[in-house]
Amino acid sequence: MTTYSFLDDYSEGAHPQILQALTATNSVQQAPYGEDAYSHEAKAKIRSHLANPDCAIFFVASGTLANIITIGSFLRPHEAVIAAASGHIVTRETGAIEAIGHKIITVPPVNGKLTPDGIRAALEANAHFPHMAKPRLVYISNATEIGTIYSKAELQAISDLCRERKLILYMDGARLGAALSGYQNDLTLTDIGLLTDAFWIGGTKVGALLGEAIVITNPSLAEDFAFHIKQRGGLLAKGRILGLQFQELFGPTNLFFNLALHSNAMAKKLATGITNAGYELAANTETNQVFPILPNALIASLSKLFAFYVWEKRGEHNSVIRLVTSWATEEAQVDRLVEAINSETVSTNV
Amino acid sequence: MTTYSFLDDYSEGAHPQILQALTATNSVQQAPYGEDAYSHEAKAKIRSHLANPDCAIFFVASGTLANIITIGSFLRPHEAVIAAASGHIVTRETGAIEAIGHKIITVPPVNGKLTPDGIRAALEANAHFPHMAKPRLVYISNATEIGTIYSKAELQAISDLCRERKLILYMDGARLGAALSGYQNDLTLTDIGLLTDAFWIGGTKVGALLGEAIVITNPSLAEDFAFHIKQRGGLLAKGRILGLQFQELFGPTNLFFNLALHSNAMAKKLATGITNAGYELAANTETNQVFPILPNALIASLSKLFAFYVWEKRGEHNSVIRLVTSWATEEAQVDRLVEAINSETVSTNV
Amino acid sequence: MTTYSFLDDYSEGAHPQILQALTATNSVQQAPYGEDAYSHEAKAKIRSHLANPDCAIFFVASGTLANIITIGSFLRPHEAVIAAASGHIVTRETGAIEAIGHKIITVPPVNGKLTPDGIRAALEANAHFPHMAKPRLVYISNATEIGTIYSKAELQAISDLCRERKLILYMDGARLGAALSGYQNDLTLTDIGLLTDAFWIGGTKVGALLGEAIVITNPSLAEDFAFHIKQRGGLLAKGRILGLQFQELFGPTNLFFNLALHSNAMAKKLATGITNAGYELAANTETNQVFPILPNALIASLSKLFAFYVWEKRGEHNSVIRLVTSWATEEAQVDRLVEAINSETVSTNV
Amino acid sequence: MTTYSFLDDYSEGAHPQILQALTATNSVQQAPYGEDAYSHEAKAKIRSHLANPDCAIFFVASGTLANIITIGSFLRPHEAVIAAASGHIVTRETGAIEAIGHKIITVPPVNGKLTPDGIRAALEANAHFPHMAKPRLVYISNATEIGTIYSKAELQAISDLCRERKLILYMDGARLGAALSGYQNDLTLTDIGLLTDAFWIGGTKVGALLGEAIVITNPSLAEDFAFHIKQRGGLLAKGRILGLQFQELFGPTNLFFNLALHSNAMAKKLATGITNAGYELAANTETNQVFPILPNALIASLSKLFAFYVWEKRGEHNSVIRLVTSWATEEAQVDRLVEAINSETVSTNV
Repeated sequence: MTTYSFLDDYSEGAHPQILQALTATNSVQQAPYGEDAYSHEAKAKIRSHLANPDCAIFFVASGTLANIITIGSFLRPHEAVIAAASGHIVTRETGAIEAIGHKIITVPPVNGKLTPDGIRAALEANAHFPHMAKPRLVYISNATEIGTIYSKAELQAISDLCRERKLILYMDGARLGAALSGYQNDLTLTDIGLLTDAFWIGGTKVGALLGEAIVITNPSLAEDFAFHIKQRGGLLAKGRILGLQFQELFGPTNLFFNLALHSNAMAKKLATGITNAGYELAANTETNQVFPILPNALIASLSKLFAFYVWEKRGEHNSVIRLVTSWATEEAQVDRLVEAINSETVSTNV
Repeated sequence: MTTYSFLDDYSEGAHPQILQALTATNSVQQAPYGEDAYSHEAKAKIRSHLANPDCAIFFVASGTLANIITIGSFLRPHEAVIAAASGHIVTRETGAIEAIGHKIITVPPVNGKLTPDGIRAALEANAHFPHMAKPRLVYISNATEIGTIYSKAELQAISDLCRERKLILYMDGARLGAALSGYQNDLTLTDIGLLTDAFWIGGTKVGALLGEAIVITNPSLAEDFAFHIKQRGGLLAKGRILGLQFQELFGPTNLFFNLALHSNAMAKKLATGITNAGYELAANTETNQVFPILPNALIASLSKLFAFYVWEKRGEHNSVIRLVTSWATEEAQVDRLVEAINSETVSTNV
Repeated sequence: MTTYSFLDDYSEGAHPQILQALTATNSVQQAPYGEDAYSHEAKAKIRSHLANPDCAIFFVASGTLANIITIGSFLRPHEAVIAAASGHIVTRETGAIEAIGHKIITVPPVNGKLTPDGIRAALEANAHFPHMAKPRLVYISNATEIGTIYSKAELQAISDLCRERKLILYMDGARLGAALSGYQNDLTLTDIGLLTDAFWIGGTKVGALLGEAIVITNPSLAEDFAFHIKQRGGLLAKGRILGLQFQELFGPTNLFFNLALHSNAMAKKLATGITNAGYELAANTETNQVFPILPNALIASLSKLFAFYVWEKRGEHNSVIRLVTSWATEEAQVDRLVEAINSETVSTNV
Repeated sequence: MTTYSFLDDYSEGAHPQILQALTATNSVQQAPYGEDAYSHEAKAKIRSHLANPDCAIFFVASGTLANIITIGSFLRPHEAVIAAASGHIVTRETGAIEAIGHKIITVPPVNGKLTPDGIRAALEANAHFPHMAKPRLVYISNATEIGTIYSKAELQAISDLCRERKLILYMDGARLGAALSGYQNDLTLTDIGLLTDAFWIGGTKVGALLGEAIVITNPSLAEDFAFHIKQRGGLLAKGRILGLQFQELFGPTNLFFNLALHSNAMAKKLATGITNAGYELAANTETNQVFPILPNALIASLSKLFAFYVWEKRGEHNSVIRLVTSWATEEAQVDRLVEAINSETVSTNV
């Protein structure tokens, strides 16, 4: 019997509704390179959530491509990015931003997030011009890499600072669905459209086969953007498969938000079950990641039944593990994991 | 009533067998980033066609990504590419190779192809070192951008020259299926594996939703290749969808070759029908592209029923059009097009 | 006894007046990085030749640096350069422009020059957007790589086209002194400032130890330029040595123009002497390069006394050689070379 | 009356001996691009200090060029640099290394230096492959950016670690003269040649007009290096001026070491005078930088007579200033500065 995985939120394929749509439209001939009817319709649906009539929307296959293309298109060679040291572009994209020529100035994160103070400190420490790269774009992730989310007030404060200091505000939304469906969330897509210059909406982790939607709300940044998509390898001949998936995600069934809600609910249930079993969490469960602190012996037992990452040690006998839920997480497996924790706790305590 | 499209070979989705496989495996949990069971199986199936036991295989989402990642990984900054002036990297990838730092030295094509003489001329004209970039990689496309194919003797001659001059031989196989299924083809995948240092097998244009398989037959070129895939945005979280499609393409039904055969057969039928109607072709129909020379009046009539590109003028009254067939081309539409040509010919001649 | 060199115009150090100025000012403390008094004064002197009150001027150490920094600062990643196939950035800078990410679209030169028709052809052949890099900057060299020069009418025509098509016009002036002092020249620095968006004035080849002055006449292109100089390694700690040399070149003795006049006069004298001896030239001698067609036996004799490049064969018995004169060329050596040609001609004809 | 500057070590031109050599050789014709007799002789002289018979030596115009060319030539695109957070490439080169595609992993410095522990921590934190750039080159500066120097034991330990972990060890020697002439120094050029893979010897700051000598002691790293010099704009037509200066610096008068000794002695004298006057230093004076902590009132008085940087505040009433000495620093000015401190101390204390 194989273990059930809580390793990540991309272990399965796509939500069945998406596969059905792909199958249903498969033989319809469409224009290539994103000029298909589905892409146009998907853009209209996303735009209906936004107050930016001039915004430009583009679909690409991966989050790293979204970051490469967007940042590379927005910046001149001497301009730098400010990001939290925990940012995905800093720690998990193999130097992709540097590979296209831009320095990333890092700031220690606060609860996984960038703050106005952090940005100000980066600006002050990087002002010896022209001997230093010029800070020009602020990169934030929402949800963050540890599952925390930005409040509306936090995003407003960063946005105000960016406008005052002529910085482009850019949001990596690999898990934007989870963020917008977070229990404490008070942000809407409309807010994000008004407060940032550009952001992207992650499809892959919310239940698509693949695909991210880049939204450029500042029209001056959208000029010639399609060239950059093509130049960096992001222009799919069958762009229809990206458009169609976003048409489904933002269609009448509200799939984008509902899948994220399920994902977050499963995490919440896990968190509640684990704390009820007497264990602490290393971080609040704001979206779809749970970080319980468990005895090493219990972790060893659990790992026979479930797959997950051991995140870091806590003293001699305990460790933090990371459990990620997704649109596909089966509630029965959540129950089974909580039960396993409870029963193993009894057995190992005896 | 909409027109039927002969514009390109990526107007439809994927062959139904591929969609069925995606659906059938959808809920199975798999490791991310290309470490899934399907990718491993697909690599084994491709390897079974090759005589290179050490070859490394990787899947990426687009042909431009394949070219960026491969050429960028193989070359040092001062090294240049030799390509036909008609090469896809020269004319249709928005300067993607230059964008990662490499000069492309172009050579006039002969029937769409690069020749040993062309390569030799490029080497001679680019030898004033270190004031000139150093030619190091030879890029060829098979089938070429105009649908012609390399014979075994032609590829052998280029390969011999490359080995003599220490040049990497690299084949863009966006339409490799069509090439290997060409009427005059005498090359096998095994041959290509032995004669090149690296090549890629196009999935998108042969009937996949997306995906290309990069095969590095020279092991010294494969070192650390995965870093480059990730750095350039080509590492899909759900790599399973690429692996699964190639598992189907190279599975027991021989889909890869059979889809290409259909595509070529439809082109052949078109070519025959058109020449039987009394028109000439501007080029031999070696794969899935047909270039008839038709009267402008006839072209105008046809364009009400079918979509295609008008390629170039031929004198005052005629033009060359391009008709592309694919795995999805319906034979009935081919017949309808030939009939339309015949009947319109009669009516316009009256 | 060593041979006297007509190989190039950078075989000696600097004009003595420049070395004297370096020595005279050596112990004066100055601000670093181009903020010294000499650089400011040199800019004022250059500006006095221009009608562009807002132009920005910068000094760098080499021509390739000037091209890298300028083109890299002006263009976005998807934008391309149009240049003659004989352009220095195409043939003699080791792919430096591609190394910073930009494609160069080449056009066959006419008498070493780019023409409006050539530019128009490049625009037409590179318009399949966004699949092609976007032509954005026109690169010309004056004098050209074969010593020819642009007339005012020719430059005006290119400038008009560039403004109509929103292209940046950029002139590589490695040998601008020779061009402006050419016998048929009707252009002034003022004209060039009005007709181009940016150009540079070569110091190295006109008699400085090193140094080129970049002049950006279009103020919108000058923003943040100093960052690019520093980022590409072009900001010298002792910028004073560049400023001081240009202060001398454009000082009261008119060194810049006078050195170039000497250089051209020596070439003219060579050309006259050689044609009087009965030999033809392969090209008009417009600046400081002479291309005589000589018998191979004569060339062999001359090469014992003088150093020069054999440029290309002309039939079985003759070849074109290239003779380059400079600010430092000794008139006695010119006479000696002409005498050698005359006497060897007699002896080999006997 | 102008102030005397202790701002930096590049406020004057060059040591007179260098200018005399330039003048004496000025009219001798030489081969261009570093193939002149002086460059060859200078390389032989530098090589005589090294135990690496196969080492390759190249001259370039600036330190940033040395770093760009060397690091860019040594690394593949996915490879990263490890450096102290205070490293020159991190803080003072406008993102030049990122601009050619490479990530820099920073480590907090210890007394301005990188340590084996710091390198090990960087390796551990950057091992999630292929999602992270691969650490491949260790960058150190000697003297460091704050004037401290590496002992032989410290360099040996870093070298051992680099060889164990297959890392390239590269030393930025902008102030290598000052380091090798430091009071506590126990390293020789021979040692550095044996312990590093490449390093460069700064000419600019030790008394040349400009110029740095890159020494590649690991022959496998030198392949095709000249292409990189040319491609990045570092190949001077009159390479003779770099070669000649290093011929003088490493000639019979031992200028390189003697100029650095003078510079260090002036700093020592300043440090002694200042501490004798009753003030503390914020750092040991190991080379040619002095960091006294002085009352703000005293600093205000001194700044009427001398130019220097105020480095940072120390409490409400004091600040650290930075005084840099050089080959050109006049001892009388050092005495005058110490006297000013003593007399001002008396007057402000009254």
